[in-house]
Amino acid sequence: MLTLHYNPLTISAATAIILEELEVPYTPILVDFRENAQQSPAYLALNPKGRVPTLQTPQGVLTETGAILEYLAAQHGPHLIPAAPFQAARMRETMYYLASTVHVNYAHAMRGPRWADLESSWADMTAKAPHTIAASLAYLEGHLDYAPFAIANSLTLADPWLFVLTEFATRLQVDIAQFPKLSAHHLMMNDRYAVRNARVKGMIP
Amino acid sequence: MLTLHYNPLTISAATAIILEELEVPYTPILVDFRENAQQSPAYLALNPKGRVPTLQTPQGVLTETGAILEYLAAQHGPHLIPAAPFQAARMRETMYYLASTVHVNYAHAMRGPRWADLESSWADMTAKAPHTIAASLAYLEGHLDYAPFAIANSLTLADPWLFVLTEFATRLQVDIAQFPKLSAHHLMMNDRYAVRNARVKGMIP
Repeated sequence: MLTLHYNPLTISAATAIILEELEVPYTPILVDFRENAQQSPAYLALNPKGRVPTLQTPQGVLTETGAILEYLAAQHGPHLIPAAPFQAARMRETMYYLASTVHVNYAHAMRGPRWADLESSWADMTAKAPHTIAASLAYLEGHLDYAPFAIANSLTLADPWLFVLTEFATRLQVDIAQFPKLSAHHLMMNDRYAVRNARVKGMIP
Repeated sequence: MLTLHYNPLTISAATAIILEELEVPYTPILVDFRENAQQSPAYLALNPKGRVPTLQTPQGVLTETGAILEYLAAQHGPHLIPAAPFQAARMRETMYYLASTVHVNYAHAMRGPRWADLESSWADMTAKAPHTIAASLAYLEGHLDYAPFAIANSLTLADPWLFVLTEFATRLQVDIAQFPKLSAHHLMMNDRYAVRNARVKGMIP
């Protein structure tokens, strides 16, 4: 059995969507950031990084969205990774860009203390974040296939991740209507059964 | 034939080491940051992100270290990915942490303008970077196997990446001697034929 430690305002939503897509049974456990539960001794014993998602598997604990999604595909849904190595690499290129650039741009809106100590620096980062987010979404608008999925014509691990980060944009006053392909992708994903189900369960706000 | 666009002071060194490990022929092309070559129209046409590494393959262009390493393993060296899904996931957990946390901590030492506009913010980030780098290396000191490789007893894609980021620490006055397991891993990797060969070719400083 799998246990997913999640918070609906975070990227753990991408893992929840893949679990719903694969119809894999899992136990969701809310990590309540309002109570700083991600820093509780019990949670840190599970994941010393104090972040979500954390997935408990029969073999042990996994962190990092990209690793968790790859594990779920390997165990339950190899069809979510393109069979051709170059297409699989394009999927992973997208996933690494989402993890190391797009998500990091978002984090600067509210998580400045991770990288700087002065309040003036945090305000500076918060002010710049909508611009760096828009720039990284513009790159994705031009780079992906939207055929209709991010990589060619079937759902891959990149799609729910892209969907969740696109959804985050609206919260930070970045208007995704300026990116018609991303917007269409977002609408398509939003109406998938797995996404609607994840919302009903409170895994996405 | 593969063409690797690289700069020896960057994470492109990890791709060079894997190419040397696999003894795959490739053409290296230096992207000279002193001449801002990463922003030249010709380079941006290849990789609009203006970063390295960029790998030209017979099927097209790939960016992002994690995607490039996975592609090279799929095409030329499946033994560099653990066969067991959970161990493969632990390798990818390490790779995503290196990409989205450790590398990003490093980037704040010198690339503050990516995320803030004021000189005072950049100085603040530069001052904090050695602390965030040391914290993320401390996490890796406690989390990996060192048996003797990052994941169990054989080389995986995580090892050269970990090696290169450990090597970067010294440049930023982070003393890796405080992390005995990481230091031993670094010494072991440093003496591998592939790493020495990459140095001789100028792919690592």
